[in-house]
Amino acid sequence: MKIMLINPNTTQYMTDSILKCARRYASPGTELYAVTASFGVSSVECYVDEYLAAPAVLREIMRGEALGVDAYVIACFGDPALQAARELTDKPVLGIAESAIAAAKMIAPCFSVVSVLDRSVKVTADVVSAYGAAPFCRSIRSTGLSVLDFGKDTDRGLSALAEQSRRAVAEDKAECVLLGCAGFVDFVEKLQRELGVPVLDGVSPAVRFAEALVGLGLRTSKVNTWTSPEKKAYTGYPFPDMNKS
Amino acid sequence: MKIMLINPNTTQYMTDSILKCARRYASPGTELYAVTASFGVSSVECYVDEYLAAPAVLREIMRGEALGVDAYVIACFGDPALQAARELTDKPVLGIAESAIAAAKMIAPCFSVVSVLDRSVKVTADVVSAYGAAPFCRSIRSTGLSVLDFGKDTDRGLSALAEQSRRAVAEDKAECVLLGCAGFVDFVEKLQRELGVPVLDGVSPAVRFAEALVGLGLRTSKVNTWTSPEKKAYTGYPFPDMNKS
Amino acid sequence: MKIMLINPNTTQYMTDSILKCARRYASPGTELYAVTASFGVSSVECYVDEYLAAPAVLREIMRGEALGVDAYVIACFGDPALQAARELTDKPVLGIAESAIAAAKMIAPCFSVVSVLDRSVKVTADVVSAYGAAPFCRSIRSTGLSVLDFGKDTDRGLSALAEQSRRAVAEDKAECVLLGCAGFVDFVEKLQRELGVPVLDGVSPAVRFAEALVGLGLRTSKVNTWTSPEKKAYTGYPFPDMNKS
Amino acid sequence: MKIMLINPNTTQYMTDSILKCARRYASPGTELYAVTASFGVSSVECYVDEYLAAPAVLREIMRGEALGVDAYVIACFGDPALQAARELTDKPVLGIAESAIAAAKMIAPCFSVVSVLDRSVKVTADVVSAYGAAPFCRSIRSTGLSVLDFGKDTDRGLSALAEQSRRAVAEDKAECVLLGCAGFVDFVEKLQRELGVPVLDGVSPAVRFAEALVGLGLRTSKVNTWTSPEKKAYTGYPFPDMNKS
Amino acid sequence: MKIMLINPNTTQYMTDSILKCARRYASPGTELYAVTASFGVSSVECYVDEYLAAPAVLREIMRGEALGVDAYVIACFGDPALQAARELTDKPVLGIAESAIAAAKMIAPCFSVVSVLDRSVKVTADVVSAYGAAPFCRSIRSTGLSVLDFGKDTDRGLSALAEQSRRAVAEDKAECVLLGCAGFVDFVEKLQRELGVPVLDGVSPAVRFAEALVGLGLRTSKVNTWTSPEKKAYTGYPFPDMNKS
Amino acid sequence: MKIMLINPNTTQYMTDSILKCARRYASPGTELYAVTASFGVSSVECYVDEYLAAPAVLREIMRGEALGVDAYVIACFGDPALQAARELTDKPVLGIAESAIAAAKMIAPCFSVVSVLDRSVKVTADVVSAYGAAPFCRSIRSTGLSVLDFGKDTDRGLSALAEQSRRAVAEDKAECVLLGCAGFVDFVEKLQRELGVPVLDGVSPAVRFAEALVGLGLRTSKVNTWTSPEKKAYTGYPFPDMNKS
Repeated sequence: MKIMLINPNTTQYMTDSILKCARRYASPGTELYAVTASFGVSSVECYVDEYLAAPAVLREIMRGEALGVDAYVIACFGDPALQAARELTDKPVLGIAESAIAAAKMIAPCFSVVSVLDRSVKVTADVVSAYGAAPFCRSIRSTGLSVLDFGKDTDRGLSALAEQSRRAVAEDKAECVLLGCAGFVDFVEKLQRELGVPVLDGVSPAVRFAEALVGLGLRTSKVNTWTSPEKKAYTGYPFPDMNKS
Repeated sequence: MKIMLINPNTTQYMTDSILKCARRYASPGTELYAVTASFGVSSVECYVDEYLAAPAVLREIMRGEALGVDAYVIACFGDPALQAARELTDKPVLGIAESAIAAAKMIAPCFSVVSVLDRSVKVTADVVSAYGAAPFCRSIRSTGLSVLDFGKDTDRGLSALAEQSRRAVAEDKAECVLLGCAGFVDFVEKLQRELGVPVLDGVSPAVRFAEALVGLGLRTSKVNTWTSPEKKAYTGYPFPDMNKS
Repeated sequence: MKIMLINPNTTQYMTDSILKCARRYASPGTELYAVTASFGVSSVECYVDEYLAAPAVLREIMRGEALGVDAYVIACFGDPALQAARELTDKPVLGIAESAIAAAKMIAPCFSVVSVLDRSVKVTADVVSAYGAAPFCRSIRSTGLSVLDFGKDTDRGLSALAEQSRRAVAEDKAECVLLGCAGFVDFVEKLQRELGVPVLDGVSPAVRFAEALVGLGLRTSKVNTWTSPEKKAYTGYPFPDMNKS
Repeated sequence: MKIMLINPNTTQYMTDSILKCARRYASPGTELYAVTASFGVSSVECYVDEYLAAPAVLREIMRGEALGVDAYVIACFGDPALQAARELTDKPVLGIAESAIAAAKMIAPCFSVVSVLDRSVKVTADVVSAYGAAPFCRSIRSTGLSVLDFGKDTDRGLSALAEQSRRAVAEDKAECVLLGCAGFVDFVEKLQRELGVPVLDGVSPAVRFAEALVGLGLRTSKVNTWTSPEKKAYTGYPFPDMNKS
Repeated sequence: MKIMLINPNTTQYMTDSILKCARRYASPGTELYAVTASFGVSSVECYVDEYLAAPAVLREIMRGEALGVDAYVIACFGDPALQAARELTDKPVLGIAESAIAAAKMIAPCFSVVSVLDRSVKVTADVVSAYGAAPFCRSIRSTGLSVLDFGKDTDRGLSALAEQSRRAVAEDKAECVLLGCAGFVDFVEKLQRELGVPVLDGVSPAVRFAEALVGLGLRTSKVNTWTSPEKKAYTGYPFPDMNKS
Repeated sequence: MKIMLINPNTTQYMTDSILKCARRYASPGTELYAVTASFGVSSVECYVDEYLAAPAVLREIMRGEALGVDAYVIACFGDPALQAARELTDKPVLGIAESAIAAAKMIAPCFSVVSVLDRSVKVTADVVSAYGAAPFCRSIRSTGLSVLDFGKDTDRGLSALAEQSRRAVAEDKAECVLLGCAGFVDFVEKLQRELGVPVLDGVSPAVRFAEALVGLGLRTSKVNTWTSPEKKAYTGYPFPDMNKS
């Protein structure tokens, strides 16, 4: 089984840490490919970033189809272009926010998310609402640090995440904490030990759920909304085959 | 990995078909135990049935703890006693309605459920609402046949399911169909071929998601709501160890 | 008019105080029967307790039918087995949470509930949501004391209730306080005097609303969802007549 | 116990039939006063009517306070001026829509309302939503007849109500029918016999619930929202005492 | 283009300041008429006030129709009688709460409202909910001052508004502040400078949106709900032509 | 006042008809610029299209800033990249779906939208939900024709729109019809005459609301969510200045 992990931003070290995390949690027989967006933005923190990251995600889906990929994971907590990706393939496509939320609901009655910048809170809130999970979400907190700040000073990052996670549990009564950025995968285990509640990144559940869907033989429904795009002119993108698709 | 499948009703042949379905979809290394409720009701179709089935579900969870089970599946579409089961163990416990809904949301923008009796529709609606999935649910239809009718005359059952599923797709614009009874697992593949949209039972995704959660090392949050019950007097049930738990 | 008060737990002194409260508020001609669950749990504080208490509630409904009871009150704030009870009789059945909430909405624009343990908050929240009352509920607070703690040290119990009720009014802007446990009926009048907002238990409104429904000649709708359970095999419960019902 | 029934419109024969209905269902010791709006509109079917009926309702509340009334019923299905009425007295005030809905939720899992004109449907929908009852409401149907049409030709009125009620049950799956106009109280018993589901007017449950609240010693919360209006200049209404209140 | 501004209360100086604000923001060619309620209440702060103010609003609409008015603005933040007004004319009618909320949603992801008395918060909350804006509203705060207090001591008023607005931004994370009373129009510019977030009154956007709707040639839909009231007897109001309308 | 109309697709004749419509409804002093996406897709009908259209929209916003534009209109009914556009400028940015919905709510109690392909319904539903307008939306219907079909055969297009609009009014009880595609602006007047209910495109209200916001001096809130993107690396887009912004 081949699963492609798509890092929607252009920062290679984040792709590396996403892949490392995925490898630790994937089943033995699963082949993992991790790709970095070939154009777009170096980190995804706002709506401009979401939209500029999306086309490169779609490009990787198209490439994956040629490679015989069995399932895709979009590894950014805003799940950029998720519905569009599902139009381009009938193989399962999972977002890491979607997967983290689905897993959290199976092991806790409610959760909080800890995100990066204050401005990123609404991007996350939109995602939580879109999945019908608002009634289970106690709060969305932010550290005030950017995605790339976490790469530069991991101690400071861990400390900020721990502080907000503690407050989510103590003040907001969260019973599970989701880390709202693919860049946080390295912090999960330390935080879990410290907090005493389950701490989830989204990458590892997305990989396992992708395996599950493939194992079940499930394909994306192509009956209407997510069927392939109509034939029309696509211009300006490095998508050689799109006009013929 | 040991997964216990709990059939909340007392009908052995349903346990058998649940186990058969689970075996077809489980991963190679997974050991499956299927147990039949040792007391309660022969089928679950109304609220009385839900409540009389629940204690036997809890008994099986307690037994499973002694046996070293890694995860549990409650194999009845009302997910009876699910939250209570999570109080009795920190191993993942999944309901089949919960699992079918979670899987459906990953592969389709909306779904319908086809249930047994007309009266069973509200039991199913309560479950769909409780999981925050009402915005994704186009309709809950019923066949007018009881759980046990399906066992007695499978052709008539299949025909009734097919009819309601077709109407869910054509009239209600469902893009995926969930079979709202554990007794329907044998009909999935035929219906899927006929309908052209994904058709899901809940047993197979529950098994795969249970494997996923165990593989991720996730445990039910014990920080507050789903911690073990307080010590108190439990009487009248065949639960030898409950008072000491 | 005969009203049966069903205490879903097995603790006799709680039944006594429920009956005392009901007597103080019932109309002159009303006959009150109070029964204690003949098996199950000594107090109801979590989901395990809810499910283990439910069968005994149903047993009392069946007994009440033989006795010519006109209406039933399930006297535990989680309203355990309420919908199931309505399947077993066409006489009105009221839960005390349902009744407290209905009364509160008639006399105040919003309310808070004060419950027992922290873990009990979600059980109460599920009930509030199920009745469509979430928009009117400002908060659900807990005292951190168990049901039985209140019986052991009433001064401490009263003090904890008063503290949380005051905070509900001052911080959460509640304009009415509901006491979220049948064991709190003795505290209502003292709290009301102290707080300056209406304080409601659920037992007294349930009795009066039961009288009202009987006086109106209303019966539970038997057209579909809450009709009698289908004939099927029920085993393991002390319900002599169930299989014939 | 004195209960004042306020007919918000100026049509005396409707007051008479409201009083007749109330007398049939009130408890023995209850004194009933029925008053007709002394100014305003001859029937309430749209928003203009609601607003022009409201001041006369408030005037009757003020009069009732002088007469020592124990509880009030606003007998029009739009519950005009209900929240305002609660500001003018601490005695319970009930609307008939509110009461019909509260009673329906106690005896059926869902209901439909049958209203007068097509245009009246939204007035009713606003009321249903305001009480948090939208999830329980299967449909709001209209007969296309005006309030006063029902007085002129009762056979035609009954036939139109029966037709829409039947469709509510058969097509919309309502398990209880509410008659959405105080002018329909005379049709309840005939419809109930014909339909086989509970049929409710709002007047009779409002009277019984008013008795219940008085019996419980409950008063409207005066802590904030519904406290007495601030002293200010009121002009142009026949409210002699308002400026001094 | 003629726009009529209706002050629903009887206080002339508030009409003057509403008109002054409207003049500052209206387009060059727009003629503005400002009228003061000819009967009713001197300020609108509670439900009694809303209902006693409504008939005079409707009277002004009827007068406006005779004068050839092109659009109406109801200049009180509770939008009293808005739906009723739309029944009496096919010219656009806008409420200032509706307009402030619509404008806020176009320039900010979320807002808070600052209102007058604590008791006024629910009147405002009802309006916010009725327009479907609750998901965008972070909080409704109150100053504890009455409408007329603001006229008496503008420094104290400004200071109280500034304090609550600052807390809305800092504590509730509002990104825009709406001033929840027509009497606050004079404070907008000072508050905006001080707060660093957009501050909106409702009068100025209502005037501009009214111009927009007239410019677009849009008329209120008369197909059903908001068509003219049926012919019936209207008594007790100074509406000479109502019975003939 | 300069307003830029951005056609998110690459089809010039649609830009022309958008501009023609805007000119007919804009105020005299308003300068209108209409631009066609310089890359992306020839029509927007699915999620892939939404995401591939978005970057060109952002590019036009950046160009507009250099040109001294006062407000922007994104002229595609999915409002692609709306929140992102607001991050790039403090001038008002309006979507045509947002504007049509806001206008509809001011003149009708409820509306339906008629869209292009069946698959486009969910894109529209997502937009309606995101603006909190779901409670006002009676239905979203589709014609089964693509955006470009309407350009090829306008008679067939008009006929399909008329058919679905009539059904929206007759069957779904819509009191206003929104045309859910910028390509439908030429059909508004004919449909309005035929249907007897208000028919709205989104372009004309967006232009007028943009004028209104500019006239009010309102700017997009920059305090948090929609502030300018953080400095980071943007690659692969023809945005010369983005990395320095």
